[in-house]
Amino acid sequence: MKRGFGSDNHSGFSPEVIEALVRANDSHALAYGDDEVTARLEVLIKDTFGPQASIYLVFNGTGANVLCIDAMCRSHEAVVCAETAHINVDECGAPQRVVGCRLLTVDTPDGKLTPELVKTRLHGFGFEHHSQPKAVSITQSTELGTLYTLDEIKALADLAHSYNMYLHVDGARLANAAVALGCSFKEMTVDCGVDCLSFGGTKNGLLMGESCIILNSALDVDLKFRRKQMTQLGSKMRFMAAQMECYLESGMWRRNAEHSNRMAQMLYQEVHALGVKVMYPVQVNSVFVQLPAEVWHALQKEYFFYDWDEGTSSECSDSEAENKIAQNVVRWMCSFDTTEEDIHNFVAALKRLL
Amino acid sequence: MKRGFGSDNHSGFSPEVIEALVRANDSHALAYGDDEVTARLEVLIKDTFGPQASIYLVFNGTGANVLCIDAMCRSHEAVVCAETAHINVDECGAPQRVVGCRLLTVDTPDGKLTPELVKTRLHGFGFEHHSQPKAVSITQSTELGTLYTLDEIKALADLAHSYNMYLHVDGARLANAAVALGCSFKEMTVDCGVDCLSFGGTKNGLLMGESCIILNSALDVDLKFRRKQMTQLGSKMRFMAAQMECYLESGMWRRNAEHSNRMAQMLYQEVHALGVKVMYPVQVNSVFVQLPAEVWHALQKEYFFYDWDEGTSSECSDSEAENKIAQNVVRWMCSFDTTEEDIHNFVAALKRLL
Amino acid sequence: MKRGFGSDNHSGFSPEVIEALVRANDSHALAYGDDEVTARLEVLIKDTFGPQASIYLVFNGTGANVLCIDAMCRSHEAVVCAETAHINVDECGAPQRVVGCRLLTVDTPDGKLTPELVKTRLHGFGFEHHSQPKAVSITQSTELGTLYTLDEIKALADLAHSYNMYLHVDGARLANAAVALGCSFKEMTVDCGVDCLSFGGTKNGLLMGESCIILNSALDVDLKFRRKQMTQLGSKMRFMAAQMECYLESGMWRRNAEHSNRMAQMLYQEVHALGVKVMYPVQVNSVFVQLPAEVWHALQKEYFFYDWDEGTSSECSDSEAENKIAQNVVRWMCSFDTTEEDIHNFVAALKRLL
Amino acid sequence: MKRGFGSDNHSGFSPEVIEALVRANDSHALAYGDDEVTARLEVLIKDTFGPQASIYLVFNGTGANVLCIDAMCRSHEAVVCAETAHINVDECGAPQRVVGCRLLTVDTPDGKLTPELVKTRLHGFGFEHHSQPKAVSITQSTELGTLYTLDEIKALADLAHSYNMYLHVDGARLANAAVALGCSFKEMTVDCGVDCLSFGGTKNGLLMGESCIILNSALDVDLKFRRKQMTQLGSKMRFMAAQMECYLESGMWRRNAEHSNRMAQMLYQEVHALGVKVMYPVQVNSVFVQLPAEVWHALQKEYFFYDWDEGTSSECSDSEAENKIAQNVVRWMCSFDTTEEDIHNFVAALKRLL
Repeated sequence: MKRGFGSDNHSGFSPEVIEALVRANDSHALAYGDDEVTARLEVLIKDTFGPQASIYLVFNGTGANVLCIDAMCRSHEAVVCAETAHINVDECGAPQRVVGCRLLTVDTPDGKLTPELVKTRLHGFGFEHHSQPKAVSITQSTELGTLYTLDEIKALADLAHSYNMYLHVDGARLANAAVALGCSFKEMTVDCGVDCLSFGGTKNGLLMGESCIILNSALDVDLKFRRKQMTQLGSKMRFMAAQMECYLESGMWRRNAEHSNRMAQMLYQEVHALGVKVMYPVQVNSVFVQLPAEVWHALQKEYFFYDWDEGTSSECSDSEAENKIAQNVVRWMCSFDTTEEDIHNFVAALKRLL
Repeated sequence: MKRGFGSDNHSGFSPEVIEALVRANDSHALAYGDDEVTARLEVLIKDTFGPQASIYLVFNGTGANVLCIDAMCRSHEAVVCAETAHINVDECGAPQRVVGCRLLTVDTPDGKLTPELVKTRLHGFGFEHHSQPKAVSITQSTELGTLYTLDEIKALADLAHSYNMYLHVDGARLANAAVALGCSFKEMTVDCGVDCLSFGGTKNGLLMGESCIILNSALDVDLKFRRKQMTQLGSKMRFMAAQMECYLESGMWRRNAEHSNRMAQMLYQEVHALGVKVMYPVQVNSVFVQLPAEVWHALQKEYFFYDWDEGTSSECSDSEAENKIAQNVVRWMCSFDTTEEDIHNFVAALKRLL
Repeated sequence: MKRGFGSDNHSGFSPEVIEALVRANDSHALAYGDDEVTARLEVLIKDTFGPQASIYLVFNGTGANVLCIDAMCRSHEAVVCAETAHINVDECGAPQRVVGCRLLTVDTPDGKLTPELVKTRLHGFGFEHHSQPKAVSITQSTELGTLYTLDEIKALADLAHSYNMYLHVDGARLANAAVALGCSFKEMTVDCGVDCLSFGGTKNGLLMGESCIILNSALDVDLKFRRKQMTQLGSKMRFMAAQMECYLESGMWRRNAEHSNRMAQMLYQEVHALGVKVMYPVQVNSVFVQLPAEVWHALQKEYFFYDWDEGTSSECSDSEAENKIAQNVVRWMCSFDTTEEDIHNFVAALKRLL
Repeated sequence: MKRGFGSDNHSGFSPEVIEALVRANDSHALAYGDDEVTARLEVLIKDTFGPQASIYLVFNGTGANVLCIDAMCRSHEAVVCAETAHINVDECGAPQRVVGCRLLTVDTPDGKLTPELVKTRLHGFGFEHHSQPKAVSITQSTELGTLYTLDEIKALADLAHSYNMYLHVDGARLANAAVALGCSFKEMTVDCGVDCLSFGGTKNGLLMGESCIILNSALDVDLKFRRKQMTQLGSKMRFMAAQMECYLESGMWRRNAEHSNRMAQMLYQEVHALGVKVMYPVQVNSVFVQLPAEVWHALQKEYFFYDWDEGTSSECSDSEAENKIAQNVVRWMCSFDTTEEDIHNFVAALKRLL
């Protein structure tokens, strides 16, 4: 496929990953996480997030998010999240099916919850006709490429805790956030009061590396059974653990995130220079722009990327497409392997069409 | 309890109901719906809604709504409904837990969906990351006491069918709507293209009478198993059937609904004359008004009723209450047994407080 | 329908029930259990089962059983029960769908679990590939009309508690058991260590009266939300509460159960005198007999009753019927309204066919 | 970890796997299966199983089994399987939680269903109190290391189809069976009438390679949504597809299975020569033996393996352990990388203990 800006999971994996897999492929090991690599990873996670942290490796972001929600909520409870949250828009209803709970969504201008927005959903406590709010879920960096500051995360954690609720972070792109904010994973999560975390490396150069990290040990109850029952227990887990270990230990998470963030800045500068309207501050590795319909339609003939009105794909029906022409927002993602040449080629193609 | 305007399920049952129960209590009958009363009801439903209609008696409105949703959707599919819909706000997440599907909610000014509002949710078809819209659900009369015209229902059915979707009507107060619109149940449902219906009489003078009525026979698949498995199969079903038969045959549905609608008009006139702001057109048996906080708080000391900001009960927490003082909308419901004296007493109390 | 011995839910309701309903139909009352009748019932339940007991009225036995299981188990846990248990055979998989848990079934000679039988299922603790045994469920009186002694119940409770598990009693016919054993409800449950109870009166003369009674207050967590979300919260609950209050206070439970038990003894004596093989001790209100296939097939032309091989109905397919001719066990149930004449007529018909 | 016979997922992956991963790591590709490697695999599956076959890659055997069950059954339906089936014993209730259906288990002498055994569960059709049998599931090779002949599979498929049911094969070790029977995958599945297949390579030398293969296209409905919603959709799917392609194309499946089967024969010969009782015919890559308790307890101090009474792990509680000493059956698995030296060392250790 032509290299482009469709998604940060269109790139493959970093070369370090193969070395880690080969190293872990050493004779026999117990399955299902009772192996030495996973044991080392568990220590590494405590080093990274503090002694109370525990990790449950899973297969994908959906698994990580659903296991986190399952740790926080029973089916009669609810998660407050942004309307644009991945758990709301892009899991095909997995939380509803697997956990059975409700999501209480809030419209936001930029994909970010605030205490004020969350409070609009905090009512009906004790009233049995209403799902009981039990968690707040934010995405860092958000689905719109924006960032929460540490203070903003802390304020949300404080609000959640004041209601006897929990704060979850969907950290599919946590590395990009850490690099952009110049802080550690721990500073951005544990130190702000985050209770659990979907922590992934697949979008940042791993072949497959996702996890549910429990930061509040009160939530660490029966999760090994819950993970298994929801189909997310891996057999030869050492190979997932080896990737995550490599990700954290080798500096790969930082190198890759710094690179993709930097590429996004370059892409931003170049399209901005063309006079294209950029929708949100470019803080991590994505650039959202508004383009005339005929321009992005033509550009999509050369490059795959998603339009982003209503979180829908370009495969929408005609009647929908008509609706959306008013907006014409598209998303471009940079990846750990994006090159300057990729950007120049892409911007050149765009320039021809404008 | 002091008679008031808290809900149309605060009243008891009409005297006809006891007679129907006693008549049905005739020696032995097969259980679980294989009895003669239920057989007669099934014929009566066909007489009422057309030969393709079938009825599944259930215990409550939640059961009726969830069975209808289960008939229309699998877990990866979704129901478009108003943010204020009972299935969204007041089922404690039953559709999510029992069916596992998503609800795609839309803000409305008056509790009513329109084709334009529904279309904002009709995207992502074929895209496996998104729950697939498969049904539209409306409430007639709505949770805000407003009404869909027959043309409006038809337009929603046409839209739904053009997307290979279904239209469900939550008819917990369908009798009030039929009386207000001067039409039959069939004209308001089958003739408009409605595919299935939650049809209830409990809020209109039955002791217990709720049902899922399938109007599009393509949806009538395995529902007897689905009803049983979701815990909604009654044992001595003849006593539920007898109530519903009485409701339809004796004219009770009409008498009671006419009365409660008329009482709401009277209540509306009296509070309007006091200068109180009425929020929505009073079309059926409810009156929503905006009052100064201190007034409705004081009135609640004498009478039970719900405040209606965010669909929450008066049992909300302090921080929430503060939030809501800005709005101060409360709901008053009339019932089949509301008397003119009830209204005069209530309005007199209100007048003292204003 | 011809009066017969098909089921104790083929009879209607006792006359006391109507009086209770009419008494409760007194003007207005709060819905969903916040009424005075339900409040009185809650006190009555504490009088009956001890101060720690709490009652959740539900609509049917399925609802009671599923709510009890939901109180004891999460989805990764399991309930040990007899293969013949109603929760296993006759709920169409409601526990699996609504709770998501496993049932670990054990073959029994007479429908009764023993500590030894239960122990065969108590393994795999801590092993995440296996559902974790968390509850034992017994039926008193059993689906085969047999009884647990108080000592037997206590032994099962002790075993369950020694494994940090709970003991549930499906008491759809608890009154028949109490009468037969000459003990109180409390002696048969709380005093033996039972943790929760499905307590029903529908099979013993109520129109509709089922409940989940929590005896171990550690299980009384969030159940009002759980009941609502699983579709089992009644609106005009005072009419369910009034029936249960009447059942317990008027002596109706005892009168009716004594009568149906006595009728079963009479039926047993008469068929035993005909030389018919009776399968289990007749301890409560059912008689299971083995008959030549042509006899019970002919008798079923006159009277409705269930054959009981594999817990299947008479509506089975041909290939199945062939299979079962080897066994030919059928069930006859007596009811609160069974008359001596009913028995004489039935036995006369049987005699003609033998 | 010391090399041993604990499980065929204790071994790592074959060297071919790394080459396949590196080849697939070629620049950018669409995610979620819209890539070229997955497209090639889809063709290869049609070549292997016939033009009607379609493949859904998933992460693990649990995912494959649950997606297959989900394709065959709705929640009110049931799957007939052996008591020892992996879907019954070793999924922690995943089918119950995710699909909501029942499993109808049958005791077998050797892990194999027969038409006669299945028929004991085929009753209650049309009776809404009973879960409706809709599928039969067998494991090939079985959890006890035994094999179905092609005629036996065909007879089960014919029986299932005569009841309008489906036949599923859990093929976590299908390669071992194909090698042992000297037949192709197609001959053992499609040609026998199998409707869907869990097809895995993880236990036979892949790092991660599991799939749900639909052979009866009538079952191929909405599965891409179902897979996503149950958390089993992989992001960088090309790397899973590349493994499966390599597995099928390079002959790796055959080489590895031939080797592990041969090693099991050697292990069998050696322990048989010691006079140890072997429980089942050794047909594929496992050996089940009965040993004095003190012997296998001592041997477990040197080598990890599972005892197999009741399918429980060695981590069982004391009271359970006592129970099981009567049986003392343990399982030894050979792997694609088992060496003759591994066997000699193991047997020597065993010999010292006997």
